Amino acid sequence: MFVNVEHLGIAVKDIAASDELFSKLFNTKPYKHEAVESEGVTTSFFKINQTKIELLEATNPDSPIAKFIEKKGEGIHHVAFEVENILAEMQRLEKEGFMLLNKIPKQGADNKLVCFLHPKGTNGVLIELCQEQP
Amino acid sequence: MFVNVEHLGIAVKDIAASDELFSKLFNTKPYKHEAVESEGVTTSFFKINQTKIELLEATNPDSPIAKFIEKKGEGIHHVAFEVENILAEMQRLEKEGFMLLNKIPKQGADNKLVCFLHPKGTNGVLIELCQEQP
Repeated sequence: MFVNVEHLGIAVKDIAASDELFSKLFNTKPYKHEAVESEGVTTSFFKINQTKIELLEATNPDSPIAKFIEKKGEGIHHVAFEVENILAEMQRLEKEGFMLLNKIPKQGADNKLVCFLHPKGTNGVLIELCQEQP
Repeated sequence: MFVNVEHLGIAVKDIAASDELFSKLFNTKPYKHEAVESEGVTTSFFKINQTKIELLEATNPDSPIAKFIEKKGEGIHHVAFEVENILAEMQRLEKEGFMLLNKIPKQGADNKLVCFLHPKGTNGVLIELCQEQP
């Protein structure tokens, strides 16, 4: 079951400059920064009600964020939905014909287990499923 | 004040096919459809917790959605934040240097007053401010 829009991921070139920009926009500062080495990104987090806004800067040229910016420019990179049970949801969606980019949940930012769906199967939208780890 | 991620707008080519796709994804059907003639779009709405997912199909080739798809393909088109007071927020953001795409709030879908910020000033993200009309 999909329970919340957990976060929106925004690909940026310069996270320090974007922190400043989004701090002006939201009139509040990011509440944390976190590096996710496995994804080659450094992140910062804002929170608006129950949804986080996650800025993502690539830390190396092979990072998915670097490739995204190269192809499409800065902008919204993905939307993450919190699900009740990530394994059950992955099974259900695979049966429905969605393409899972990872077959077992992997460690994401913010203490989450995550799975991405291929955007070719979802009208060009990169969708992340996530579930908080106990 | 930014109070909620009110909705995510997703540009699609064929809203009937996408209704079916997103119904499978979310395991629930869209709860309403609405045409917004001024924007040249037809829309359908899903709701996940406090955030709506709005699918947008162009009804004519001059629609912003048609142009977006032509340039970038299907995908996330904008993110809308509910604000407490749209006029106050528009004034504040203009002073901060953000570019407002409309200088007075306009009528959007879902009984909202809306204002868009130019994505050139927000890291490529098209941002909508919205406030429910009384």
